Amino acid sequence: MRPFEVRPIRIEREVKPGDDVAELILDAGYEPHPDDVLAIAHTIVSKAEGAIVDLSEVEPSPFAETLAERLGKDPKVVEVVLREAETVVRVGPHFILTEVRGGMVCANSGVDESNAPPGHVIVLPEDPDASARRIRCRIREETGVDVGVIITDTQGRPFREGVIGVAIGASGVPTLVDRRGDRDLYGRELEITVVATGDLLAAAAELAMGQADEGTPAAVIRGVRRALIDKGGPDTAAALVRDPGEDIFR
Amino acid sequence: MRPFEVRPIRIEREVKPGDDVAELILDAGYEPHPDDVLAIAHTIVSKAEGAIVDLSEVEPSPFAETLAERLGKDPKVVEVVLREAETVVRVGPHFILTEVRGGMVCANSGVDESNAPPGHVIVLPEDPDASARRIRCRIREETGVDVGVIITDTQGRPFREGVIGVAIGASGVPTLVDRRGDRDLYGRELEITVVATGDLLAAAAELAMGQADEGTPAAVIRGVRRALIDKGGPDTAAALVRDPGEDIFR
Repeated sequence: MRPFEVRPIRIEREVKPGDDVAELILDAGYEPHPDDVLAIAHTIVSKAEGAIVDLSEVEPSPFAETLAERLGKDPKVVEVVLREAETVVRVGPHFILTEVRGGMVCANSGVDESNAPPGHVIVLPEDPDASARRIRCRIREETGVDVGVIITDTQGRPFREGVIGVAIGASGVPTLVDRRGDRDLYGRELEITVVATGDLLAAAAELAMGQADEGTPAAVIRGVRRALIDKGGPDTAAALVRDPGEDIFR
Repeated sequence: MRPFEVRPIRIEREVKPGDDVAELILDAGYEPHPDDVLAIAHTIVSKAEGAIVDLSEVEPSPFAETLAERLGKDPKVVEVVLREAETVVRVGPHFILTEVRGGMVCANSGVDESNAPPGHVIVLPEDPDASARRIRCRIREETGVDVGVIITDTQGRPFREGVIGVAIGASGVPTLVDRRGDRDLYGRELEITVVATGDLLAAAAELAMGQADEGTPAAVIRGVRRALIDKGGPDTAAALVRDPGEDIFR
């Protein structure tokens, strides 16, 4: 692999429903290059798509009330978490682990109280792979340059402390790269065969995005896209979600 | 955050027990800078430390034989996996999920058949945080420059496909950064408070390290170390391991 660079993209103004995320990023001075992967925090994609819930319009169910008391959370927020969930996988001490549309497992269905306008919560984009495709397409329309796009979320995980960046939407860059057939130093086939490049890109971008209040909800990773495309692989984040039937943790 | 750069470090020759990893990396042309985090794949650290097992000297127990048959694995390799484990957390379809020294949970106790000399397997370094401290110290001795060091492994995880890079050893760079007290765009305290910066660095490095047979078992991440040190946090990978008592997945 060659060296690569990661640069934060600063978006000064608040993102509102109806905003064009590609335009906001280009207006922020981003100059696309074919070897780029543009990483965008889902919060601004959700906001632009209107994936925001006004809590004053939410009526919590008795189940949400019970769960909220147990978790010490706002019953209205818990109600939104349950509405966004396909299945409740497990109830933790301070969160509800759920499976959302598309099968992704995450805490609280990805419902985000931070960075939402007061009295609101941010939910995940309806179809983050489609959001990534749309943003990629808009950048190509505006500039003539094709780039990869990933939509990121910040998530906790079993066994390890702290949150990391993961890809929840993608277009134009392989999210899984299969090393099958590659050989080790001694010419044997590699044991570890599939690398989650989409999540590696999201993690690298997370390092550059920094704090929420710094207004850097996007970053560009320049220098790996072409090498990843050469190796091939699916260009959706849906491919990163393990099939529940093959998951010993569900 | 500022932009940063990730560069692979190529080590042409095979690493052998007794080798000085810091020297190998400096000989490869690496010029240290105080804003660097040096990421090193544990395989070369293990090899240099002699953390290699000769399978001809391993006598599998009856339990290892039974498990090996069920998993379709070499009974001698399974025996090494069990010897390296503190606890067996779960037995998956093709792997044994274990807890190793220090409490880290990983597949097959981190025992690696790839990149090991024929008839051998590579195990995890005895104390990867201590390995990172030693390598950091040697680089400072040789060059006068203090850098951060992380030792990385490539691991699978629940719920998601593909493997990612994680930090299993660290020195001189915060592995967890607490955002508590930071505020969002609307001035509210952030919900997500602790970021696993050690694992983000490992993931970014993994993108640059590429394939095993390319001989790039190390990478340098230049441009984030000082900003992370300013934020503070523990500089060990042990801090990334969730306390089993607080882990709903164990």
